[in-house]
Amino acid sequence: MRAEVVSVGTELLLGQIVDTNAAYLAKALSAVGVSVYRRSTVGDNMDRLVAALTTAFADNDIVVTIGGLGPTLDDITREGVAKALGDSLVQDDAIAANLSKFFADRGIPMTESNLRQARVPVHGRAIDNPNGTAPGLLFVKDDKIAICLPGPPNEFIPMVDDFVTPYLLEKTGNRGTIRSRILRVIGMGESSVEQIVKDLMHDDNPTLAPYAKIGEVHLRITARHDTAEQAEELVEERAALVRARLGRLIYGEDNQTLEQAVVSLLLDNGSTVSVAESCSGGLLAKRITDIPGSSRVFPAGLVCYSNAAKEDLAGVNPSTIEKHGAVSHEVAAELAYGVRKRFSTTYGIGITGIAGPDGGTEMKPVGLVFIALADAQGCKVERAHLLGSRSVVRTRAVQTALNLLRLSLLTQRH
Amino acid sequence: MRAEVVSVGTELLLGQIVDTNAAYLAKALSAVGVSVYRRSTVGDNMDRLVAALTTAFADNDIVVTIGGLGPTLDDITREGVAKALGDSLVQDDAIAANLSKFFADRGIPMTESNLRQARVPVHGRAIDNPNGTAPGLLFVKDDKIAICLPGPPNEFIPMVDDFVTPYLLEKTGNRGTIRSRILRVIGMGESSVEQIVKDLMHDDNPTLAPYAKIGEVHLRITARHDTAEQAEELVEERAALVRARLGRLIYGEDNQTLEQAVVSLLLDNGSTVSVAESCSGGLLAKRITDIPGSSRVFPAGLVCYSNAAKEDLAGVNPSTIEKHGAVSHEVAAELAYGVRKRFSTTYGIGITGIAGPDGGTEMKPVGLVFIALADAQGCKVERAHLLGSRSVVRTRAVQTALNLLRLSLLTQRH
Repeated sequence: MRAEVVSVGTELLLGQIVDTNAAYLAKALSAVGVSVYRRSTVGDNMDRLVAALTTAFADNDIVVTIGGLGPTLDDITREGVAKALGDSLVQDDAIAANLSKFFADRGIPMTESNLRQARVPVHGRAIDNPNGTAPGLLFVKDDKIAICLPGPPNEFIPMVDDFVTPYLLEKTGNRGTIRSRILRVIGMGESSVEQIVKDLMHDDNPTLAPYAKIGEVHLRITARHDTAEQAEELVEERAALVRARLGRLIYGEDNQTLEQAVVSLLLDNGSTVSVAESCSGGLLAKRITDIPGSSRVFPAGLVCYSNAAKEDLAGVNPSTIEKHGAVSHEVAAELAYGVRKRFSTTYGIGITGIAGPDGGTEMKPVGLVFIALADAQGCKVERAHLLGSRSVVRTRAVQTALNLLRLSLLTQRH
Repeated sequence: MRAEVVSVGTELLLGQIVDTNAAYLAKALSAVGVSVYRRSTVGDNMDRLVAALTTAFADNDIVVTIGGLGPTLDDITREGVAKALGDSLVQDDAIAANLSKFFADRGIPMTESNLRQARVPVHGRAIDNPNGTAPGLLFVKDDKIAICLPGPPNEFIPMVDDFVTPYLLEKTGNRGTIRSRILRVIGMGESSVEQIVKDLMHDDNPTLAPYAKIGEVHLRITARHDTAEQAEELVEERAALVRARLGRLIYGEDNQTLEQAVVSLLLDNGSTVSVAESCSGGLLAKRITDIPGSSRVFPAGLVCYSNAAKEDLAGVNPSTIEKHGAVSHEVAAELAYGVRKRFSTTYGIGITGIAGPDGGTEMKPVGLVFIALADAQGCKVERAHLLGSRSVVRTRAVQTALNLLRLSLLTQRH
């Protein structure tokens, strides 16, 4: 079965609201094995809505609409879907009575327009909405199905979970036929990763697609099969192939973040880390402490923004700064050594660089960052020329630091 | 002029990513007076993309695509738009040379597929992308315009602002007919803010709508008029009314962040701040240093996660921790005093609390946070019981800290 999602609302069309509902619905449809063919957004305009719906019904078995079921004049979805399907609407007296009671209970006068919410399709029925006054609508006519859901997310999401998913599972006879997994890769760019797995990207099932993120690449594997177990098996086979090729470039799966991977390795190894940050300004400490339980592996961080703070807090030698500059291999190393010593941690990390947008020179351009990792054996310093805005440079610097630590923890362990 | 926005990417279609770019673009198009007729999302499938584009070109003067310009095989937008318009692509040698240089500078081998990013339309040209390797594309053929932009928001947003808006302003001769402004409110909840401006929310033009954010509320004013100047005047009149009612609850407008407001006030007042964070783990330092030029007002921050670090770095008295616990009014005050003294700053901020999800007790539940602001006159401590996930608690704690500092800076100034 093939579906199109149609979001209705001028505020969505004009971008005044970001359409998180459509994303939620698309995931739910995929999970029950319904292929989402296309998503569209139209404003509160009857002609355009009917045109979009007519195209959608021509190409698909199911159309799910979001929004436009309210009581006001610009809520046109109910009538629009009826027109596009050649169906008509009648008042449901039970719903009308419920509406009257709802308003009476609250001492609010009910207007004529509120009664529009009691209108249901001749070929179909209302869908319960326990969290609002607008019921959803189900149209079933001439082998086409339309499901109309209200826009407020607190009404919409429960109706997807409690009606759309079970209804379509029954309708399709599917028990969930699509499974997917993300393998999260760090330390190599998107096109180089693609070179390594290119031959696997031509298959239709499972599919494999790379997505570039800031400072990492996500490889998404998606498989379809009759049952969820079989789909999962296909995913796992493909994941094993990719893992064998990329090895330690893969740091995690699905929603696992890099900082989660690093904190678990630290916990597993019984290791600790402290950090001394200049240009990243606390972002590295923030990301480590985002993880519950990080207090067991992270006693402290220093944000040494001024040179005086680098000297006072991390014990950087003033002559090192004078000789090499605050943004240098040497200062990064002294930050890492200094903070490690101060807090007696297994590892110390130092970051210094030019995040921009100002402060670059020809010799030391914006984006130049030195990242140092010190441990009992010594210190490794990486020099990186990072591209992007201030925020992106800072994020990439922190990605590099976390990955240096991760690789060292992996080496230690094996 | 009429436009359709087409987002390209299976990850968008399936809802694995929420399409914030399309909302941003739709707002930008509306602002220059281009009517957005429809928005569509299609997957990485050439037939469906060409079908969607063909419909879009039939109904509209302008089609703007988002995504699918990367170097990999599933990046099909370039070819798809050329097909739909009956145009072809040729290699631009200057772009190819730039790409080669980019990879050579970084010591990364350039693959054949990277060269796809050097292909430009015969009827059109490349659009500069200063933040990535994929240039945008402009097609102008048979009275139709296509603008193709890359998907990563840090590349996409600057290209909308620096190319799409000025290009379409010139093309349409419009100076925009819709204007809007956001007034950013902190220190009061959404429903209380709404009570204060409720009577202004019934008007159609300008409209006024509140949006609840984490730790703040945004009030959006939108006005339409024949010219941009007139629309702007309507917005400004309404903004003046709202400002008169909310006063210092408004910290900024449009895209100005709270940390930007605070850093400008510090610069204006010639004041400085240092911070000692426990539960917020570097987030406060990170947000201050997100702002270019913050080095002039922020010498250093301490992330005192362990009790030993609180004592060693910020000079907290061990007996204070023993007597009152690390999460206490007294420790917050000593963190603020200690860091202020250590770095000789005008202000010192201390934050200690329980971010969760674990570590709460009946007396000190998850979400309990103490935020202290010390200056030459003394120290003010706010006790807050913050609701939400670990990340939300941390964000709210930092919002509170920044707002305490902002209010003190405003009082000092007047």
